[in-house]
Amino acid sequence: MADPFRERTRRLQQRLLGVGASGAVFFPSPNCYYLSGFREEPMERHLLVFVPADGDPAIVAPDLYADQLADETWIDQIETYPDGGDPVALVREIGAELGISEGRLLLDPTMWARFTLDLRTAFPAATFELVEDVLAELRMSKDEAELASMETASEAADEVMERVRRLGPDAVGMTEADLAGWIRDELLERGQEVSFEVVVGSGPNGAKPHHRHGDRHIESGDPVVLDFGVRVDGYPSDMTRTVVFDGEPPGEFETAHDVVALAQDAAVNAVEPGVPAERIDELARERIEEAGFGDAFVHRTGHGIGLEVHEPPYIVSGNDMELEPGMVFSVEPGIYLTDAFGVRIEDLVVVTEDGGRRLNHVSRDWRV
Amino acid sequence: MADPFRERTRRLQQRLLGVGASGAVFFPSPNCYYLSGFREEPMERHLLVFVPADGDPAIVAPDLYADQLADETWIDQIETYPDGGDPVALVREIGAELGISEGRLLLDPTMWARFTLDLRTAFPAATFELVEDVLAELRMSKDEAELASMETASEAADEVMERVRRLGPDAVGMTEADLAGWIRDELLERGQEVSFEVVVGSGPNGAKPHHRHGDRHIESGDPVVLDFGVRVDGYPSDMTRTVVFDGEPPGEFETAHDVVALAQDAAVNAVEPGVPAERIDELARERIEEAGFGDAFVHRTGHGIGLEVHEPPYIVSGNDMELEPGMVFSVEPGIYLTDAFGVRIEDLVVVTEDGGRRLNHVSRDWRV
Repeated sequence: MADPFRERTRRLQQRLLGVGASGAVFFPSPNCYYLSGFREEPMERHLLVFVPADGDPAIVAPDLYADQLADETWIDQIETYPDGGDPVALVREIGAELGISEGRLLLDPTMWARFTLDLRTAFPAATFELVEDVLAELRMSKDEAELASMETASEAADEVMERVRRLGPDAVGMTEADLAGWIRDELLERGQEVSFEVVVGSGPNGAKPHHRHGDRHIESGDPVVLDFGVRVDGYPSDMTRTVVFDGEPPGEFETAHDVVALAQDAAVNAVEPGVPAERIDELARERIEEAGFGDAFVHRTGHGIGLEVHEPPYIVSGNDMELEPGMVFSVEPGIYLTDAFGVRIEDLVVVTEDGGRRLNHVSRDWRV
Repeated sequence: MADPFRERTRRLQQRLLGVGASGAVFFPSPNCYYLSGFREEPMERHLLVFVPADGDPAIVAPDLYADQLADETWIDQIETYPDGGDPVALVREIGAELGISEGRLLLDPTMWARFTLDLRTAFPAATFELVEDVLAELRMSKDEAELASMETASEAADEVMERVRRLGPDAVGMTEADLAGWIRDELLERGQEVSFEVVVGSGPNGAKPHHRHGDRHIESGDPVVLDFGVRVDGYPSDMTRTVVFDGEPPGEFETAHDVVALAQDAAVNAVEPGVPAERIDELARERIEEAGFGDAFVHRTGHGIGLEVHEPPYIVSGNDMELEPGMVFSVEPGIYLTDAFGVRIEDLVVVTEDGGRRLNHVSRDWRV
């Protein structure tokens, strides 16, 4: 089989030619891994991957990455500089050699200002835009290997959620942080790293949609928002359930949970090729608005997921992109009642030839 | 006590006035936390903190961060937009209001290209530079609370290293990943999160300076590079030892380890206020070059550490910045013999009024 990284780069180059760009520049990021096979965290040193619209790519890197690059990437031209050297001079040289010193140069969207400012200095005749759309289209459609990884990662998250549900009254009295640590350990037994810091939002903390976990003890009757995932082969899962481990929840909770569950079902059931992404958001939102909770659904309905936990397609008002087979995204409507509780239900959904298929199958009931 | 975040912002504003900048812009990053108290990971949505040289700062943020911002930051003006809204229009408005639409605007060095390109669109009359030097000077000098956190974090790492050493022959046969997981668990019992993915580089893997850990089984006679740390109150530790758990190491290893230990001592002993950072690098490098291993020391001698694991001052050739009391950095010379083994010894050192003080005290001997 051809090297998938090389193939992806060739496909990107065709698109760069198509949009009249002279090339694209990446730094350590999921895009960089997707194209080069080189996987690293962003760093304060200049490590830049130059992909001309035509010809072979090249990498400018610190000396100490030479071995790792040789191991991990198919790209042959690797130009290194020592600590204390002048990476900008090297960038200027490689830019001239590859013919990308002028014209439209597309940047990795997460490239740090530290490097974009240097690229402007090195290539004063170039204009800069984001590579985003050109590459996002390639990355949005997952191939079979990618789907298999995400399916395995979602099964792992389902298993852990099932184990959490079985805690029942034993979870009462635990702090959010304790439960999050327990979930984390369970996830790491099934994958390489957690997709993001585990969310355990009990009682009023569940109403903060981006709360992770704190020292609050879970109480009887608390609705608890549980949001987590784990990576398998680099690909993450991401799911949410809202449960009550013991006792009676607040009066409005059951209604709110029913509304969110209905909204989530309506959105998932509408997934099929050709439907605009915003239509999925609209369907979830309509159900929640009709029930009078419109103001309490403060975020978009979902996000694409792949090498990044958040990537296109975004399931949000204003995004008229039509769904296509192979896309994978979350469907996660929620209701957040400040100082009271939150409810969110989230599954990953893959677009198939004739509909949508959930990757998560564990019960969505709030009763454990 | 005055809010330290507000005080730091006021000090930054004095410096912005001093260098004639109109303001600075941050997005979720350690700088952002240092100034605002708001702690988040970088995100694909526009969350920007605007600090004018004169007057009160303001934040542009997605709706769903409103509660978290209100909880975490002292900054009063928080302008939010819904998913699907127009954050760039809001940025333009706030920029005009704060008087930072033109003039020199200093950017958070890790701000993503996604946002720097939008700032150029919103403020066509502004010129952009990095905020780096202006803020780095503030952040480099740690106050007592910061030093106390880093001391506690270093004690925790020392304790874990001592426990690793005691594994002795029991570590033989473990995979690097198993040992890294064990170390990670020990670290997390003593702090909130690991400073970075634990490094266990056994045998030839130790020669890749940025190898983390893999499936290789540790063998008798393997030199093993162990590099890890843990965060306490947000502040990380970072240390390295190279040990042989059992058996006889390769012939050249003992010499290489002696050289690195001598180089590290020479560098640490030279730390005092007024010495240029590059002099510390030079002292370590001289020892290694004299022993004939110059080509095998492929990185700088150290890096500052604080809210970020890598931050100024960098201990590297070409950096003539003079050391000052309160600075904290790593001293970590190494020798990397490709396909054979690596050696690195690293301690954190704080600059005191009359010298330098190691924050790590566990044995540096390779014999466990």
